[in-house]
Amino acid sequence: MSDLIQRVDTNGVATLVLSRASAYNSLSLPLMEALIVEFDAINDDMSVRAVIIKGDGKGFCAGHDLKEMLESGEEAFYECTFNTCSQMMQRIVSLSIPVIAQVHGVATAAGCQLVASCDLAYAAESARFGTPGVNIGLFCSTPMVALSRAVSQKHSMELLLTGGLIDASRAEQIGLINQVVSNDALDKHVLAVASLIASKSRKTLAIGKSAFYKQKEQSLEDAYVTCSKIMTENIMLDDAKEGIDAFISKRKPEWQHC
Amino acid sequence: MSDLIQRVDTNGVATLVLSRASAYNSLSLPLMEALIVEFDAINDDMSVRAVIIKGDGKGFCAGHDLKEMLESGEEAFYECTFNTCSQMMQRIVSLSIPVIAQVHGVATAAGCQLVASCDLAYAAESARFGTPGVNIGLFCSTPMVALSRAVSQKHSMELLLTGGLIDASRAEQIGLINQVVSNDALDKHVLAVASLIASKSRKTLAIGKSAFYKQKEQSLEDAYVTCSKIMTENIMLDDAKEGIDAFISKRKPEWQHC
Amino acid sequence: MSDLIQRVDTNGVATLVLSRASAYNSLSLPLMEALIVEFDAINDDMSVRAVIIKGDGKGFCAGHDLKEMLESGEEAFYECTFNTCSQMMQRIVSLSIPVIAQVHGVATAAGCQLVASCDLAYAAESARFGTPGVNIGLFCSTPMVALSRAVSQKHSMELLLTGGLIDASRAEQIGLINQVVSNDALDKHVLAVASLIASKSRKTLAIGKSAFYKQKEQSLEDAYVTCSKIMTENIMLDDAKEGIDAFISKRKPEWQHC
Repeated sequence: MSDLIQRVDTNGVATLVLSRASAYNSLSLPLMEALIVEFDAINDDMSVRAVIIKGDGKGFCAGHDLKEMLESGEEAFYECTFNTCSQMMQRIVSLSIPVIAQVHGVATAAGCQLVASCDLAYAAESARFGTPGVNIGLFCSTPMVALSRAVSQKHSMELLLTGGLIDASRAEQIGLINQVVSNDALDKHVLAVASLIASKSRKTLAIGKSAFYKQKEQSLEDAYVTCSKIMTENIMLDDAKEGIDAFISKRKPEWQHC
Repeated sequence: MSDLIQRVDTNGVATLVLSRASAYNSLSLPLMEALIVEFDAINDDMSVRAVIIKGDGKGFCAGHDLKEMLESGEEAFYECTFNTCSQMMQRIVSLSIPVIAQVHGVATAAGCQLVASCDLAYAAESARFGTPGVNIGLFCSTPMVALSRAVSQKHSMELLLTGGLIDASRAEQIGLINQVVSNDALDKHVLAVASLIASKSRKTLAIGKSAFYKQKEQSLEDAYVTCSKIMTENIMLDDAKEGIDAFISKRKPEWQHC
Repeated sequence: MSDLIQRVDTNGVATLVLSRASAYNSLSLPLMEALIVEFDAINDDMSVRAVIIKGDGKGFCAGHDLKEMLESGEEAFYECTFNTCSQMMQRIVSLSIPVIAQVHGVATAAGCQLVASCDLAYAAESARFGTPGVNIGLFCSTPMVALSRAVSQKHSMELLLTGGLIDASRAEQIGLINQVVSNDALDKHVLAVASLIASKSRKTLAIGKSAFYKQKEQSLEDAYVTCSKIMTENIMLDDAKEGIDAFISKRKPEWQHC
């Protein structure tokens, strides 16, 4: 494994720690590539049922690595950076396993996009969010793809056009994160949510997450066709039979797919 | 009329009461079919200008009838159930008349979907909402079609992935319902909203509701083409002429279509 | 310039004042045409980097001019009115420059649509919002195109079906406006936001705003293709080079495009 990411597994929960603390965990090309490798590994690892992404050091993630980008100065390098970033973000969406952002300190530009791209996000009171690209003449265009699908139009535009930071409470209010908790409680809170999700059937989570993002882009009618079919397939699986039987028998289910 | 649904009409407001209190008004196939029959009748009934859906007994609706489904165990039955459910939910959307969910107690799985599918929703403090399918290995895939069109991505995912319940206050906060009111005030509040809507022109409500869901799925440009045309047709109708004249004359309008 | 609109420019911020105070700044055909002319002029005016729209007199804008419409009574006139209105609203979206609604008093029907169509919106405590067309038999179908893209489904429907007004605090809560401020503070607050935006690169703002509305209507995958390409083009521009260099040198950037 790359030393840019630390992975710790606990009872079905894989925690990925962005480990470039000296650079505010900014998303250098090697770090993004390492993340994609991790996501692919997790997707094939039947022991994992929930993923947490967090940052080492003072903050979550400060976006792209401007120094790395300046040093290159070449269009081909920029193109590669933005394409790799876009692939990494979409890999979170296409991953079979739910992904939770655990945010402390800054989450800016592509770091804010990372929060928006995760299925769930929780933040400490210390967290600050923003898409400040406009301040350096480089609009946060790829971050806004995820941002504008997570929060409403006026709220997206405020972040994008002013380039300012919002605190965790405001991020909760606009739906960028699910909940803000105290700095001390963050670790425990996110692990509790991840563990709850990890107690579900892996197969069921995979079916549901995949269906969610597929149907979101369809018309209402097509979405119902898609999901009615998926529900029928889901209920024919052993884990659904087990789950329903356990529910009626008032016992804990034992999933096959875990 | 089926004894699974009670219908009470008052001054243009039709209240449909889900009447399977012994089974938390769970949506058995006969109940869903009875609802579709009622919706069709209401659509043709020129005396109705607003619909309220509420539940008899301890709660609003606990989703599908798991016992009925287990007893069958056949794929064809499941397919029929999910298809009928999807048709019933879409019938609410395609109905000419605005539909209001009046929620007390549990509104879970397809019951939560029913809330999300209605044009408006109000709930008592007693109300609890959730999509707990993941707890029994059966992801709430059809419920999420309506849920994810009513609330934002992170909020949808929290309900879907954790399988937990939220209270009425949180449901208001995330936009799943319009407002939470005290348990005692619910009946009166919802009837007041429904009566207000029932004081409008039936034809105008029908034009507007239909246009709303059509334009929502179009591009901005196409939506404006659609709605500019509809506005022009609307203003040429007698009820618009009457409404504008009444407004300028500072008198109460008298609609033809009621 | 038409006397229906006053334009005042201050340090890159163009303020357009709707000046039909005697008619609550209702959008007569000449006023809408004058707005389109102003937007076109601003789009070509390299000295402008942010636009504020406000209303003269007691309120922001009370929608269409019912008297003008009644006097005509002709379908061709209505058609022209709604088409011109739709073009004007879309011109705000397609404008290179961010547009901010500054709202006091009433913002109803097409006036509410104007608020929803702007990139950002701030309101005084005095502000009231609504789409009351249903009260006069003329559903606010074109206003809902903008409204339903700014706020969630249940919140849109509440305004559209009941025809009631909401206050500024509720408008903030549902995301129709970014923030409510005291009546006295509104002018200063909006000018501060506009001036902040006007301190950015005009070219960067234009790239970002255009990309925002384009990618919003695309699938996630297509949106990333679009925006990755745009990010690469953006970073090759002089203003991005200058912005990044200024950021690293901890100095204020000097944009070429202003």
